[in-house]
Amino acid sequence: MRQAARTLEIRTPGQGLHEITREVQSFVAGEGMATGLLTVFCRHTSASLLIQENADPDVRRDLEDWVARLAPESASYRHQDEGPDDMPAHLRTALTTVQLSIPLTGGRLALGTWQGIYLFEHRARPHRREVVLHLLGD
Amino acid sequence: MRQAARTLEIRTPGQGLHEITREVQSFVAGEGMATGLLTVFCRHTSASLLIQENADPDVRRDLEDWVARLAPESASYRHQDEGPDDMPAHLRTALTTVQLSIPLTGGRLALGTWQGIYLFEHRARPHRREVVLHLLGD
Amino acid sequence: MRQAARTLEIRTPGQGLHEITREVQSFVAGEGMATGLLTVFCRHTSASLLIQENADPDVRRDLEDWVARLAPESASYRHQDEGPDDMPAHLRTALTTVQLSIPLTGGRLALGTWQGIYLFEHRARPHRREVVLHLLGD
Repeated sequence: MRQAARTLEIRTPGQGLHEITREVQSFVAGEGMATGLLTVFCRHTSASLLIQENADPDVRRDLEDWVARLAPESASYRHQDEGPDDMPAHLRTALTTVQLSIPLTGGRLALGTWQGIYLFEHRARPHRREVVLHLLGD
Repeated sequence: MRQAARTLEIRTPGQGLHEITREVQSFVAGEGMATGLLTVFCRHTSASLLIQENADPDVRRDLEDWVARLAPESASYRHQDEGPDDMPAHLRTALTTVQLSIPLTGGRLALGTWQGIYLFEHRARPHRREVVLHLLGD
Repeated sequence: MRQAARTLEIRTPGQGLHEITREVQSFVAGEGMATGLLTVFCRHTSASLLIQENADPDVRRDLEDWVARLAPESASYRHQDEGPDDMPAHLRTALTTVQLSIPLTGGRLALGTWQGIYLFEHRARPHRREVVLHLLGD
């Protein structure tokens, strides 16, 4: 068994779900392992990760709206220093996750047919985000 | 160190928490490892995983009700093609998770006394679901 | 490649986010690995884990308030046997997570600059909590 790691730099255009499945699969394919475990880790507290449907774009719009309703912008938060979109960004990150691990079997990630991997940007303005990929297997 | 993987096929009777702790433990026990890491991965976007209390069934009913309140059926979603229970199913999957990793120590999963592993079916009708188990250790 | 595991016992003073980054990093540093994968697992159904901002304490207060609004105490839950704070504690655990995996690269956890690891106590009274750490790598 062996390990491999890489840091992806992702430029996001602002709030919303940004698919990174292809970048992740490309790293995995390059390592040529048959069986293993891939971990995706987002190094931020105002952007997160989500596995969701990659077919109908309406699903992503509905998801973005729902997350914005559950963790809305509000003048009632104590933390206001970094702008009105910052505290909701922390809450939306807590609502989803910063880490996903996906088994690798038969040389492929075990993602289902409709599953895509998304970086979920929660800040209003474009950001450069770092996502660490770690793979171990043989 | 070595790896093992298996895909469980779970038939769900419709919406609700469906315990799979025994199936997962059976796979782990069969591999006879002392120390390791087990990953459970759900290959769907309308069913998810949850570790929760396995003692009082009322906890599961309250959990199901709460998730249904936070991500209700609604005519206001854009995505309506697959029925009124489909978009809420995606939201409820995002609210919980499709992946869990549990350490194995002393030959046993490190689950607490009251922790059970559940497949959370979010669609109204019965479904056949695939859950991938991946174990590595020695 | 090799593995190491340890169980941390954490005494919480009651509801709120309790930082455990230092304890986790201390375990990892003691193993002296360059590359690997760390898993943190909380063995409870009324306390959880969260990676969040470790800079402004107001972020943690806002997070605690938000979680309490999404999963409030209520007389309408079926499960009331263990006190009014117990069922909300299960819901708040489901809203966050009991497991985090963090890659180790260059001899350090891949946590971002502002990311801290927190044990999130959801019960009102002080508790003794067990958090299992599992590390594999070389």
